[in-house]
Amino acid sequence: MRAMAKPVINHRGPEFRELYRRILNNLKFVFETKGDVFVLTASGTGGVECAIRNILSNGDKIAVPVNGVFSERLRNAVTAFGGKSIETTIDWGSAITPAQVEDLFEKEKNIKAFAVVYNETSTGATTRNLKEIGKICHDHEALFVVDAISILGGDELPVDEWGVDICVAGSQKCLMTPPGLVMLSVNEAAWKIAETARRSYYFDLLEYRKFLANYETPYTPAVTLFYALDEALLMMKEEGLQPRYNRHNLCARSLYAGLEALGFQIFPRPEFRSQVVVAANYLPKIDDKKFRELLREKYHVVVAGGMGKLKGAMFRIGVMGIVSQLEILTTIGAIESTLLDLGHEFEYGVGSRAARDVFARQSQR
Amino acid sequence: MRAMAKPVINHRGPEFRELYRRILNNLKFVFETKGDVFVLTASGTGGVECAIRNILSNGDKIAVPVNGVFSERLRNAVTAFGGKSIETTIDWGSAITPAQVEDLFEKEKNIKAFAVVYNETSTGATTRNLKEIGKICHDHEALFVVDAISILGGDELPVDEWGVDICVAGSQKCLMTPPGLVMLSVNEAAWKIAETARRSYYFDLLEYRKFLANYETPYTPAVTLFYALDEALLMMKEEGLQPRYNRHNLCARSLYAGLEALGFQIFPRPEFRSQVVVAANYLPKIDDKKFRELLREKYHVVVAGGMGKLKGAMFRIGVMGIVSQLEILTTIGAIESTLLDLGHEFEYGVGSRAARDVFARQSQR
Repeated sequence: MRAMAKPVINHRGPEFRELYRRILNNLKFVFETKGDVFVLTASGTGGVECAIRNILSNGDKIAVPVNGVFSERLRNAVTAFGGKSIETTIDWGSAITPAQVEDLFEKEKNIKAFAVVYNETSTGATTRNLKEIGKICHDHEALFVVDAISILGGDELPVDEWGVDICVAGSQKCLMTPPGLVMLSVNEAAWKIAETARRSYYFDLLEYRKFLANYETPYTPAVTLFYALDEALLMMKEEGLQPRYNRHNLCARSLYAGLEALGFQIFPRPEFRSQVVVAANYLPKIDDKKFRELLREKYHVVVAGGMGKLKGAMFRIGVMGIVSQLEILTTIGAIESTLLDLGHEFEYGVGSRAARDVFARQSQR
Repeated sequence: MRAMAKPVINHRGPEFRELYRRILNNLKFVFETKGDVFVLTASGTGGVECAIRNILSNGDKIAVPVNGVFSERLRNAVTAFGGKSIETTIDWGSAITPAQVEDLFEKEKNIKAFAVVYNETSTGATTRNLKEIGKICHDHEALFVVDAISILGGDELPVDEWGVDICVAGSQKCLMTPPGLVMLSVNEAAWKIAETARRSYYFDLLEYRKFLANYETPYTPAVTLFYALDEALLMMKEEGLQPRYNRHNLCARSLYAGLEALGFQIFPRPEFRSQVVVAANYLPKIDDKKFRELLREKYHVVVAGGMGKLKGAMFRIGVMGIVSQLEILTTIGAIESTLLDLGHEFEYGVGSRAARDVFARQSQR
């Protein structure tokens, strides 16, 4: 917040170029890439449109595993622009496996790109084995596109090592910046396709690349959000990537333990559980609206409801960016108090104790 | 800046809905419309794409008078999405007249929309008689689209009274908000076309309309910029529209008088001179880079250079939003000092006196 409270500078002047250059260098550190990176002024969905449009020509086949609201959006971006979506339906709460990806490429030929949502925020499920999946894509001469909007900076994603050709991230999730920016990485293989794809306009990456040489953006950037992103990236460099991922992992494990001790059923299957968003089904007789309202108004803890077909059936807790034992124990404590307020019968304190134990065990190591 | 220094709220929660509802009501006041208004997270060019895409089907003719860099962008948005651009070339520094619009519709039939840049920021020329132009468009059953990105809030634009079917404004110009948001107004006639147009994705207005009913946006909004816009709109309501336009007019007249007294040739023709951006040709032997660098580094006044084919030949001064006698006299004073530093021979003080006289005459009234 303090970083944003500075006068807006001319985005065609030397101060902006210095700012943007530093941001891009630090983004390459976070994406772990030597490829090009960009910052666009848009919501995450704008970033998804950008990734798809820049590799798509009419009729191209793009494969998308669909296992939640955000992978539906990714699929819709393909069809919205004249692409043919090759869809693999996956249970919500699960994610595609390398074997299923292999199978997909066996069944369907001439797939131009395989695009996957790394972390399905709507279900709390993270796709695993991306490196292996990337290799399968490349073996079949398809681009590997990763929508990492809600997870980049909160779980590992070494873009170059895992062979990700285009990666999209959002400012407001694990990158700890207010919403309004999307970050993309683009490698040589992706550029080759982008150069032949039908041109876009606001999201035309070739325009962004032209201006990149001079550390500028083609259109007026959201300068105050760039200030915030700059500060957030400096904080991330200070912490280091692996300690950061470990912290998210520890916080998520604590939350899962606390919720399970309270009798909640975790929504995603164990092997796909996210370490940046925790989704749980409601206990019987607990009303979504009442639960979240009480939690928010009495205990000042804001959690999200279910999305799409899961609305009313579950709730989701973000474990993104600035999160530590303090936030996790506060959240579990508030949930326990809310359950008590709603007349739920349980051993009060059992969730907090289980959550706390995860942190205690970790510090004994 | 202070308005933005608040925690980010859940954009699907009651606080956001209250915020967005107030913003929309106040935007209707500024646009002077009873139609729908929207806020999108994007740069101005994204707003232009949105306006065009939502009314365009393949092969549709859209007429665009081209008289500068931003009207070129508007024209390019038409062709980028499969529209046929019916172009009227106008001298840079001039703007289209109702007679020319009438002429255009006589020559070319079945024009779906006429889209004009109200204020061409690259040349400092404002299109006049928009009400008359709007009437001509409607007489020929064409939509009237106005790109008011750099001017809404700084010069009059009663959207409903002037028959503007779609209007686009940017946050970072006369609306005094940091860059990153675009505002659109859409009336019933425009909705009828939008409902039949080829669908967009991130910029699909039908999606925005769906969420509008609940005072939400379909994709995560740039919340901190919404805070800033909210505050800016409250400031605009306090001042009132007409006093605000008068203030811009007075400041611009003072600047024109000061620059002319110093021997500068104003770029746009007198009848098209903008009251929100002032563009002047350089005096002989004054170098663009040196002039603007000195002005910025020694006197802390930032002015913009020329764009496109005008690069190096002229400079531009914003008269947008928070601007008063203080800023105008500071700017003219700094320009005089810079000219002296660069060895230009002139009667020092003549510009400041002329600029000051405009304010003095006004306060005597």
